[in-house]
Amino acid sequence: MNKETLIQVHNRIKPLIHNTPVLTSQLLNVKAGCNLYFKCENFQKMGAFKMRGAANAILALSDEERLCGVVTHSSGNFAQAVSLAAQKLGVKAYIVMPKNAPQVKKDAVKTYEGHIIECDSTLQAREATAKKVKDEYGATFLHPSNQDEVIFGNSTAAIELLEEQPNLDIILTPVGGGGLIAGTALAAHYFSDNCIVIGGEPMEADDAYRSLISGKIETNEKTDTIADGLRTHLGDRNFPIIQKYVDKIIRVEENEIVEAMKLIWERMKIITEPSCAVPFAAVLKYKDEFKNKNVGIILSGGNVDLKNLPF
Amino acid sequence: MNKETLIQVHNRIKPLIHNTPVLTSQLLNVKAGCNLYFKCENFQKMGAFKMRGAANAILALSDEERLCGVVTHSSGNFAQAVSLAAQKLGVKAYIVMPKNAPQVKKDAVKTYEGHIIECDSTLQAREATAKKVKDEYGATFLHPSNQDEVIFGNSTAAIELLEEQPNLDIILTPVGGGGLIAGTALAAHYFSDNCIVIGGEPMEADDAYRSLISGKIETNEKTDTIADGLRTHLGDRNFPIIQKYVDKIIRVEENEIVEAMKLIWERMKIITEPSCAVPFAAVLKYKDEFKNKNVGIILSGGNVDLKNLPF
Repeated sequence: MNKETLIQVHNRIKPLIHNTPVLTSQLLNVKAGCNLYFKCENFQKMGAFKMRGAANAILALSDEERLCGVVTHSSGNFAQAVSLAAQKLGVKAYIVMPKNAPQVKKDAVKTYEGHIIECDSTLQAREATAKKVKDEYGATFLHPSNQDEVIFGNSTAAIELLEEQPNLDIILTPVGGGGLIAGTALAAHYFSDNCIVIGGEPMEADDAYRSLISGKIETNEKTDTIADGLRTHLGDRNFPIIQKYVDKIIRVEENEIVEAMKLIWERMKIITEPSCAVPFAAVLKYKDEFKNKNVGIILSGGNVDLKNLPF
Repeated sequence: MNKETLIQVHNRIKPLIHNTPVLTSQLLNVKAGCNLYFKCENFQKMGAFKMRGAANAILALSDEERLCGVVTHSSGNFAQAVSLAAQKLGVKAYIVMPKNAPQVKKDAVKTYEGHIIECDSTLQAREATAKKVKDEYGATFLHPSNQDEVIFGNSTAAIELLEEQPNLDIILTPVGGGGLIAGTALAAHYFSDNCIVIGGEPMEADDAYRSLISGKIETNEKTDTIADGLRTHLGDRNFPIIQKYVDKIIRVEENEIVEAMKLIWERMKIITEPSCAVPFAAVLKYKDEFKNKNVGIILSGGNVDLKNLPF
C-alpha cells in the first residue's frame, strides 16, 4: 500500500460517488475558536461515506467474483451502500438483516435492489447466515470497516478534503468500527505534510480510546450512546493503521454530542447523524487545543429517523 | 427600473450576502419527473433570503438616514435580516416585536444587536409603535415585502440561480407577502428569455391566488397553515409586478406541504422551513405540467424550531 494505491482507488470509485462539498460557518468558527471545514458526507450517495468503501470493495473483485455477488450483514448504512454500489455495477447484493430490523431500513435496502435475507437478531445468527450465503452462492463477504479495500475507499473523503483545503492542521472523524478513521489517517499520511488525525468517540462506547492505551482491541460492555453508528469495535485490519497514524482519541459525553448536533443543524442547516457530531463535540470540549487551527471534520452521514430526534 | 438597476443592486449587496449553492438530487428528479435546481437560501446569512432585501434597503439610504437608524415590525426572518444588515453597516436597527414573541426570536435579534422595542401583539399596536420610533428617532421604516428596494434585493437570488442555470424553463417561489416572487419575476424578466415564474401558496392562505383572479389585493380570513412565513398578504408595490410578470399561483394542501418538506429533509439532508416546501409540493402535485422541464425552486429559508416539527 502506498500513495499510488490510494490515487488509483480514488480514480476508480469517482464515477460512483459524489465529491461532496466542504462547508464552513463563520458563526461556528467563532464559537469553536478555530477554522472549521466540514466535509459533508451526509450529501454522499445513499447519505453516508460508506458508499466509498463499498464501491471500492466491489470494484476490487475479479469478474468471476462479481458474477457470484457479495454478502454483508448490516442493518445500517453499509447495507445501503453495498446495495447501491452493487446495483450500479450489476452485481447481486445479499444483505443479512435481523428479522426485527426497522421496516424503514429494509425499505432503504430494497430501494437499491439489495436482496434481504432475514435471520435472528444475535451477532452469531448474522455471522452464520452470512457464511451460509457465502458458501451457497460463492458470494464475497464484505465487512463494513475491517477490510483493506473498504478502508482505502473510505480514505478518499479525506483525500478530497485535503485537495480542497491543503492547509489543514488536523482532521477529525468519529470512531465506530474504525474504517473511517483508518482510511482518513492513511490519507493524511500520504496526502499532507503535517496534518494529524484525531478521533472522536462517545464516553459510552470508548473501546477505541481504551484499545490505543492497552495496545489490543478492546470491546464495549455497554453501548448506551445516541451515536448509534459508533457502537461497534475495531478490527485487526484497521487497528494497526490507527495505532500507527492516529494522534489520539477524544471522548465526549452524551449531552455534549446532542449539543454539538443541535449546533450543526441549527447553524449549518444540514441534517447529520448523531455520530457526526462527536468530533465537533470534541473540538468544542477542548477549544484550547484547536485554537486558531485549520480543522477538518468529516461529517459521516445524514440518515436519521426524523421521528426520533434528541431535541 | 431596468436590468441595470438590478445589476447595481446585486453588486452592491454582494459583500453582505452569500452566493448560496444550487443543489440537485437525482432521486427527487426521478420522483418529480423533471430536473430540479434548488437555490438554497436556507444557507444564506441569518438563514433566509430576507438578508438580500434588508441589505439592499439599508444600502439605499442616504448618509443622513443611516445616522438615524431603521425600524421594522416583525418577529420573523425580516427582523433578523434587518438587525444583521444594520449591524454590518453600522446602522442602528429598532425592531418592534410583540411582548409575547417567542424568546428564541428575541434572542436571534439580540445576537445581531437589533434593539427590541416591545408592544402589544395586535397589528395596530405594532404599526403605531413603529410609527412612534420613526417619529421620535427619524428612523426609516423598512417593510418586509412591500418596498421597492426590498423587492430588488430579493431578485438577486433568482439572478444568481439563472447565472448558474441559464436554461431554466420555470422558477417557483413560495408566496407570502409577495416580496420574493415579485423580485424573482423581475429577475426572470430581465435575465432570461423564456423562463416563467410560478408561485406556490397554501390552500389555507391563498390570498395571492385570489388576488390574481379578482385583480385587487385580497386578504386571508384565516391562515391555518404550517407554512408560517406565508400568512401575510400582498402589497401595492409588489402586486402590480406579480400581475404583470408572474405566470400563475398553484395552491397546495397542508398534507402535501408536509410530505414535500419531509422529502427535502430526508433526501437532500438539508433543513428548510415549511414555506420552502410549498413550491416543491406544487411540482409534485402537477407533474405533467413540469415534465422533463428545467425547474428552479427558491428554498426561502431554514430557520425552524427543531422542537416543533411536523413529522
